Amino acid sequence: MSLYSEIPGGVTAPAGYVAGSAYCGIKATNKDRPDIAMIYSAQPTVAAATFTTNRVKAAPVRVSTQHLRSPDIRAIIANSGNANACTGVMGIENAKRMTKATAAALGLKERQVLVCSTGRIGVPLPIEKMEATIAGLPTALSAEGSRVAAEAIMTSDTFPKEIAVEFTLSGKKVRIGGIAKGAGMIDPNMATMLCFVTTDAVIEKNEFQQALSASVEQSFNRITIDGDMSTNDTVIALANGLAGNEPLRNGTPDHDRFQRALDHVTRNLARLIVEDGEGVTKFVEVHVNGASSFSDARRAAEAVAKSTLVKCAWFGGDPNWGRIMDAVGYSGAKMREETMDIYYDGVIAVKGGMASRTPMEKLQAIVAKEKFTVTIDLHLGPAEYTVYTTDLSTEYVKLNMGE
Amino acid sequence: MSLYSEIPGGVTAPAGYVAGSAYCGIKATNKDRPDIAMIYSAQPTVAAATFTTNRVKAAPVRVSTQHLRSPDIRAIIANSGNANACTGVMGIENAKRMTKATAAALGLKERQVLVCSTGRIGVPLPIEKMEATIAGLPTALSAEGSRVAAEAIMTSDTFPKEIAVEFTLSGKKVRIGGIAKGAGMIDPNMATMLCFVTTDAVIEKNEFQQALSASVEQSFNRITIDGDMSTNDTVIALANGLAGNEPLRNGTPDHDRFQRALDHVTRNLARLIVEDGEGVTKFVEVHVNGASSFSDARRAAEAVAKSTLVKCAWFGGDPNWGRIMDAVGYSGAKMREETMDIYYDGVIAVKGGMASRTPMEKLQAIVAKEKFTVTIDLHLGPAEYTVYTTDLSTEYVKLNMGE
Repeated sequence: MSLYSEIPGGVTAPAGYVAGSAYCGIKATNKDRPDIAMIYSAQPTVAAATFTTNRVKAAPVRVSTQHLRSPDIRAIIANSGNANACTGVMGIENAKRMTKATAAALGLKERQVLVCSTGRIGVPLPIEKMEATIAGLPTALSAEGSRVAAEAIMTSDTFPKEIAVEFTLSGKKVRIGGIAKGAGMIDPNMATMLCFVTTDAVIEKNEFQQALSASVEQSFNRITIDGDMSTNDTVIALANGLAGNEPLRNGTPDHDRFQRALDHVTRNLARLIVEDGEGVTKFVEVHVNGASSFSDARRAAEAVAKSTLVKCAWFGGDPNWGRIMDAVGYSGAKMREETMDIYYDGVIAVKGGMASRTPMEKLQAIVAKEKFTVTIDLHLGPAEYTVYTTDLSTEYVKLNMGE
Repeated sequence: MSLYSEIPGGVTAPAGYVAGSAYCGIKATNKDRPDIAMIYSAQPTVAAATFTTNRVKAAPVRVSTQHLRSPDIRAIIANSGNANACTGVMGIENAKRMTKATAAALGLKERQVLVCSTGRIGVPLPIEKMEATIAGLPTALSAEGSRVAAEAIMTSDTFPKEIAVEFTLSGKKVRIGGIAKGAGMIDPNMATMLCFVTTDAVIEKNEFQQALSASVEQSFNRITIDGDMSTNDTVIALANGLAGNEPLRNGTPDHDRFQRALDHVTRNLARLIVEDGEGVTKFVEVHVNGASSFSDARRAAEAVAKSTLVKCAWFGGDPNWGRIMDAVGYSGAKMREETMDIYYDGVIAVKGGMASRTPMEKLQAIVAKEKFTVTIDLHLGPAEYTVYTTDLSTEYVKLNMGE
């Protein structure tokens, strides 16, 4: 029997959650789209979160970091179109006003509300309009609201991203669901992204935070589109305990099942973010093995995944392995040219640091595909690492020439 | 009186040097262009050099590193169109055959010849053809040959790069001249570039190496176009002593004059490389000051100078300071959002981490220019750093889609 099954839906798939969206006119582009999302749990939840490691942190990141200490989070309020970053004291005040308006609308305390923003940096929020919109949002909440919430947090995303899974723990049916947005400023150690995960599992706060951090490390911290880390990146996970399973404990088979299901949710949302990256035409998995250490494997994989020249070559369908050798060479990872092999989808391109006998046409046919894997074997040790990345297209540049 | 004057010419401006070029048909593109350059000194020279720090080092880098130990270098042989990198044992053999052919043609020992290659990675050199071409090259050498040598090392460069300066040391006229090529794979800690500098100054090997290393740190290590560091980067400097000045000693005014003249030559060649970067439409000087430490200043400047999103914004004429804040935030440099100011050409764009009152149109007018300066003041300490960078254009991507 499988560990978990995918089921339809997102954050409202687990028991006890409703979500909805509203239109407030915050966005400069896609002006006609909903731009505020609300997620609400009728029961108190245990909350876990990871935030951007950028030293420039948006106001909602600062406010949510504070509120996360509350033992009974009940709602998430999020807007797109404006990041509320680099907005000073007024930005903090406005983020608090978003939580206050949400608390008032739902009959909660401010500290029970987490807040997120995504969009343009350095512009004040239209907070009065937003307060009025938020006041009316509870009537829009429903158990089918995950999709519209996923749509309301989109910026340059071209499709909403949601997923849900179902599995059993101590005989009880448990669900985990999630929605996410991405598209620009995507880089490991967090993407420019928002991700909201809900579950009805019973789990304590410490275990939940550990599980989420491990899951983010396996997913959102391994994707890169343009190497720029945003000021607003946030992953929030809520657990309301309605499934009634026995509390999850580290090291038990049930905990392992929960972790795997959670990893499936975050990894799939991370992949959807990469596939929907701005101007992306190719999805590439860069896998390094045979490294002396984990950090060497990571350095090598990230250097290749972020190399402007490598990404341009992929865009052009050019299996330019010289640029891959070059990037591994400057990555800082321990490597020896003479022992390095490179494969495209398992077909050897470089053997011992030199061109293999594989005909160029065969490699070109692989790079012509929309998805392929580059495997780099350093033959120096047991460590490995994987990064999910993209090509760099003329369309990406055009999309980012101005806002 | 000025410290030095610019004079016409390049590597053949100092006394005692000749240069020339020949056509061998190595290049896949620009097939009709000369592709081999030779520089020759009738007198023995003291040689200094800096090479790529990439762990993947091209064969000519390895051979030149060996030959650099010789006390009496006499010639440089360089080809474009083929990097002789990732070519294994045969690559080393071919680099040695280039020095052997040059030595035979000029009546020298192999170890008196330094060798460089630039161009495509992973393809064997057409060494027999090159040996035949090199054998005939001495007849093409002349005291006016700097320009044609500069042309012969061009790859995707659109113009040859040369400069020369003249000054006096202990009453003697001294000259320094240089040529360079760049255009792609340009990044600090060396650009994908070749640079050859000649001087008729009298200077000892240790002092010369120190002076060159300091000069490279101020110039080629501060430029970035695409963040990719090449396998072939090489700066070679030769001093033949014909000027007859008193030997230069560290800490003397004469040494200082020499260093400033040398810095002028390398800094100007570095700037020419950036201005001629692939698909470049804007030349941007990123200056960070007020940093807590030199390494913090460098981290912040390099993060901004390499940010894909910042560079795309510049290409589009968008003074997107939010992206600059973001890049400084993830750079790893110590910074406080609230104390950070940003200026475009001295006009304040960000004050204390927030939008200044400067009208956006005024900033847009600056970013519309072909050259401008971004100054970032962290207000945390005395350290500063400057990087010379470019925008990222759709043309860059097109140029690098395939070779």
